[in-house]
Amino acid sequence: MSNRYPPESAGRRMIDDVPKAVPEERVSDIRKRLFEKANDFETLNYVYIIDRKGKLAGVLSLKDVFQKPEESKVKDLMVKDVIRARPHTDQERVAILALKYNLKSVPVVDKEDIFLGVVPSDVILGILHSENVEDILRFAGISKRDVILNKTLQFPVSVLAKIRLPWLIFGLLGGLFAAKIVTFFEGPLKVNFVLAAFIPLIVYMADAVGVQAQTLFIRNLALDSRLDARKYFLKEIKISLVIALILGAFLALISFLWFGLLNIGIILGVSLFLTVICACLIAVLVPWLLQGLKKDPAIGSGPFATIVRDVLTLVIYFSVASLMLKFF
Amino acid sequence: MSNRYPPESAGRRMIDDVPKAVPEERVSDIRKRLFEKANDFETLNYVYIIDRKGKLAGVLSLKDVFQKPEESKVKDLMVKDVIRARPHTDQERVAILALKYNLKSVPVVDKEDIFLGVVPSDVILGILHSENVEDILRFAGISKRDVILNKTLQFPVSVLAKIRLPWLIFGLLGGLFAAKIVTFFEGPLKVNFVLAAFIPLIVYMADAVGVQAQTLFIRNLALDSRLDARKYFLKEIKISLVIALILGAFLALISFLWFGLLNIGIILGVSLFLTVICACLIAVLVPWLLQGLKKDPAIGSGPFATIVRDVLTLVIYFSVASLMLKFF
Repeated sequence: MSNRYPPESAGRRMIDDVPKAVPEERVSDIRKRLFEKANDFETLNYVYIIDRKGKLAGVLSLKDVFQKPEESKVKDLMVKDVIRARPHTDQERVAILALKYNLKSVPVVDKEDIFLGVVPSDVILGILHSENVEDILRFAGISKRDVILNKTLQFPVSVLAKIRLPWLIFGLLGGLFAAKIVTFFEGPLKVNFVLAAFIPLIVYMADAVGVQAQTLFIRNLALDSRLDARKYFLKEIKISLVIALILGAFLALISFLWFGLLNIGIILGVSLFLTVICACLIAVLVPWLLQGLKKDPAIGSGPFATIVRDVLTLVIYFSVASLMLKFF
Repeated sequence: MSNRYPPESAGRRMIDDVPKAVPEERVSDIRKRLFEKANDFETLNYVYIIDRKGKLAGVLSLKDVFQKPEESKVKDLMVKDVIRARPHTDQERVAILALKYNLKSVPVVDKEDIFLGVVPSDVILGILHSENVEDILRFAGISKRDVILNKTLQFPVSVLAKIRLPWLIFGLLGGLFAAKIVTFFEGPLKVNFVLAAFIPLIVYMADAVGVQAQTLFIRNLALDSRLDARKYFLKEIKISLVIALILGAFLALISFLWFGLLNIGIILGVSLFLTVICACLIAVLVPWLLQGLKKDPAIGSGPFATIVRDVLTLVIYFSVASLMLKFF
């Protein structure tokens, strides 16, 4: 049955063997069921109350089962306002629901509210772990997480090198492309050699700002599926303006004081201002676009984003420099 | 009591109100206790069996309490080989123990094995989440995680910019330092301008390789506290040799074919070979050193590591270039 749902969805991760009851039952009925077949249940945190149509009507904690009077009716005790997921809900979202509402298990229902199963606490713990590990390794350009996690010493060098190489080779090609771009600007660079000296700084700063903006946006998206992306985008523009202005002014000032060249200081300041804003916008637009295309926004992070940003940063930097050197 | 232990330790996160029993009791005694005071317990997953000296003797699952015969003795049913943590154990380690052994709660004992409390499942879920979020945000040079998580739209631009700026300013200063280094090599760079064009590539590759190596090492450390760091280091040297050789040869070949300069191709290949090895070694040595100093190895990742690596990479690149240009 579980293969009906997409990989990494709630439907794929749910189990069905949990304690259930109907609203008309009494606490004593549930106790009896537990004494008879507790071992059949995979998880024992909650008793799920299902009405005669199969709909999820409420939930009862195990504490209530122990402590409430034997004769009291389930429907009078149960919590009716139950947090629930749909079978197509992404597993990371299920884990975040559990975290947010401090739940041990999250019930899964279909669009008619028919109870389908439960994603239990140990599965939720595992989901949260693997999703976060995936995010962390993606930063590092590694995708075959299961193979290398905690197992570096157990694998031969050839396997480990093969896992680490693909994005590095891709990065190398991107870097060659970037080098080609720089050679186009040989003219202005030879005249003002110090511009070449600032290439690492400009590229590094665009990356640092871009990674920050992207990390925060992806986290905001993961934690709040109804995030107003348009509002977020406007806010990010404002933040990036403030950051770009401060960093640009700071760089212009220090490089003028340290290297004694006013025109270079201005070129650097303006370039950093523009590249920082550009990096922030890309950081929000790419994941937004990916989410619109129903792809995992986190895919846009990591080495691919870095190369795109680096090449764009170099183009901005040298365009600004070429243009401004004509006037100085 | 909990303040006796360091922040983010098991001792700080444990609770004491869990079901307990002595080995001589019977299943019926535990049932009676649960019926009387289930609501007093914060977590109901396991019954912890404590002997007369206060030592943790075993554990009994709630399923057993329901299903085993009333008259059976606790000491005959309990699991004796219980996974446990010490109060000074790092909270991330506790979460990883729970994950590894599929536990809902992890008991905490002192060095005489006296039972102190339990880190419950919801706390473990929260620990795992916050530790991973911390790691992810640290990559992005952000530390005040609680303030901005999921709340970007609720905070004013000034606060958000202030959270994001510190490491960026630090990075800017590091970049200025790197620029100064590049100007020292103005001579060879002016003669062979194409060397300047490859600065972004060399810096980018050293970073990409360094981030990979460091991410994998920190994860290996987090998941296995008894990791043989010496063996790991030797293995990393081997892997880095393979990766450096492939990338260096690849770069030498392509840059020769694309730019048509044999000497530049050789300089680039040798430089990349050396910087990749250097980046891998730093990636393992820094966290290893930090762990030896009892600091969180993950601190060594993020913007600080990047700047150190970038500066070192530039020094290697230009030293190799200056030296080899004398012979070509």
